[in-house]
Amino acid sequence: MTMQLYCFGESGNAYKAALTLELAGVDWQPVFVDFFKGAARSDAFKTLNPMGEVPVLIDGDVKLTQSGVIQQYIVDKTGRLGGTEDDKYEVLRWVLWDNHKMSSQAGVARFLLNFLPQEKRPQEAIAFLQGRLKAAYAVLNDHLDGRDWIVGDALTVADISCCSYLFYDEPFGFDRKDWPHIDAWLARISETPGWKHPYDLMQRALGA
Amino acid sequence: MTMQLYCFGESGNAYKAALTLELAGVDWQPVFVDFFKGAARSDAFKTLNPMGEVPVLIDGDVKLTQSGVIQQYIVDKTGRLGGTEDDKYEVLRWVLWDNHKMSSQAGVARFLLNFLPQEKRPQEAIAFLQGRLKAAYAVLNDHLDGRDWIVGDALTVADISCCSYLFYDEPFGFDRKDWPHIDAWLARISETPGWKHPYDLMQRALGA
Repeated sequence: MTMQLYCFGESGNAYKAALTLELAGVDWQPVFVDFFKGAARSDAFKTLNPMGEVPVLIDGDVKLTQSGVIQQYIVDKTGRLGGTEDDKYEVLRWVLWDNHKMSSQAGVARFLLNFLPQEKRPQEAIAFLQGRLKAAYAVLNDHLDGRDWIVGDALTVADISCCSYLFYDEPFGFDRKDWPHIDAWLARISETPGWKHPYDLMQRALGA
Repeated sequence: MTMQLYCFGESGNAYKAALTLELAGVDWQPVFVDFFKGAARSDAFKTLNPMGEVPVLIDGDVKLTQSGVIQQYIVDKTGRLGGTEDDKYEVLRWVLWDNHKMSSQAGVARFLLNFLPQEKRPQEAIAFLQGRLKAAYAVLNDHLDGRDWIVGDALTVADISCCSYLFYDEPFGFDRKDWPHIDAWLARISETPGWKHPYDLMQRALGA
């Protein structure tokens, strides 16, 4: 049965789920959520996910939210992208780190800088987030020094989680040139057969 | 063998690991990290965890970081606090949600408001974080309406993750009285046999 992923192109968290589905070879299709018009806050959507967020994955009777949960479900179901059995805590470690320290702040900084009118942007909060993000980029860049992948010797959901917001072109304070090991790792990911840019996997909520 | 947890009292993330160890009945002891004097940024500590963060768990040859990873390890090792097999994705969902939407921001807001000198506090960033936290408290409060525990019918690591920062007395914009279902749930957690306040499980880095 075809799985359905409720998503929209601008969501890096949805991209983590979409790219995992795509690279694991799962039969899936995106269901567009018109986020910026309030679709995720509608009663119908809140029945799907009271947290009011994408992504939401539907697989028959199974309904899952939170990108890291969807990633784990795909790993469990396909046996792909999870690394070896010995790697499982290390993979989870980086998925959690990304959720705690990187995507959570990168997603917000990118939203504030690109999808809010200029006069509504909280400049001090943006600068604060960017300062914390710089520390996160440094941790990731150092970790990738001498490594091809975040965990073990193959692409895992840890890579897919951490890379998600870094593939978007809208400026939010991340420049690949500043972080050579991240830059080389992003190139490796985008050269993986089947890789697609978020806007090629999911419909954009704002005009292309 | 006694497990060792590198931690300090003020860290809600360390508390998630410490309370999980304690309530799972594990033989463990805290190892104090003098965080505010820079101990987590020392070379010795960075050998333990290049992310420069507590908690770090040592169990013989096993070294784990990220509170959610330590929680999962204790669940796997003891068979406790993880809910039923059917609950595993729902437990992970709330641990990830907490890391993404609640603890990450509550920890920062509490740090800025209590452990930075008043003249150094970024007031706009604090207000921004508090606004986002209010949305998170509302999600949790609504979820707990009619439920005793976050997942299923018993305490799990999802509860321990989400409650962590909410047990501290230092003000950061969370008031139990504003959120009756969270308030009742925190009372249930603190009435659980073996429950301890963070400052009774781990040494404080600042004077008591």
